[in-house]
Amino acid sequence: MDDSTIIAANAAFYRAFAAGDVSEVTRLWADDDGISCIHPGWPAIIGRSAVLGSWSDILQNAGLPRIAVAQPRAITNGDSGWVVCIEIVDGTPFAATNHFRRIEGAWRLVHHQASPIAQIATAHEATADDLDPKRRVH
Amino acid sequence: MDDSTIIAANAAFYRAFAAGDVSEVTRLWADDDGISCIHPGWPAIIGRSAVLGSWSDILQNAGLPRIAVAQPRAITNGDSGWVVCIEIVDGTPFAATNHFRRIEGAWRLVHHQASPIAQIATAHEATADDLDPKRRVH
Repeated sequence: MDDSTIIAANAAFYRAFAAGDVSEVTRLWADDDGISCIHPGWPAIIGRSAVLGSWSDILQNAGLPRIAVAQPRAITNGDSGWVVCIEIVDGTPFAATNHFRRIEGAWRLVHHQASPIAQIATAHEATADDLDPKRRVH
Repeated sequence: MDDSTIIAANAAFYRAFAAGDVSEVTRLWADDDGISCIHPGWPAIIGRSAVLGSWSDILQNAGLPRIAVAQPRAITNGDSGWVVCIEIVDGTPFAATNHFRRIEGAWRLVHHQASPIAQIATAHEATADDLDPKRRVH
């Protein structure tokens, strides 16, 4: 039950991201300063103003990326939990984690991190060969 | 108080990593299957066997990397919390997050994710110019 509700919250986040819906993305994050985000290639940003400012910049960009989410898997423990998933941004896959806290019955984002995946072209094209340790780059 | 104890747990993890101490790294992770890890360039791995197996592989590698941690910043909420920090691995910086759960009074790792930082050579050399949005790669 927790897994399905947190995966639904994760899906809602990506729907809002895909739609460029700043107000919905803002609503989905916890309304306090104990939130943080690591965008690909960047150090961490902390606090509601910095985190939501970064999302507003991304979503209001004229070149809003096409984004899809695949392979969500949830881990929950009481009112904390997270979803690991593959983000596909303009065709490029990222390994992403979205951490949530359940606040008044609703899962709200508290941390987001997305990392480039080096060895696969897209999540759909990935095969077992892609996970061959000999191909590991780091 | 919580911030200092979780930052101490984060430091203990990097000390064990730097020392190649598999048993200490194993002890620092929560002893259940609700743990996950995203190494640079890789999709998520989930579960105690997969996560600790990956750390054992890294730490027992003949070419154990030199690792240091900088700029740890903590966010805690009850018995959940995380530390964002810069990992410097063989001179290359990564933006890392270590998520912990407090179990019987001790912070234990439940999720680790490290992402390459594109725009700075090392954390110590970073300046405000490095964060110029015009230099943003993604």
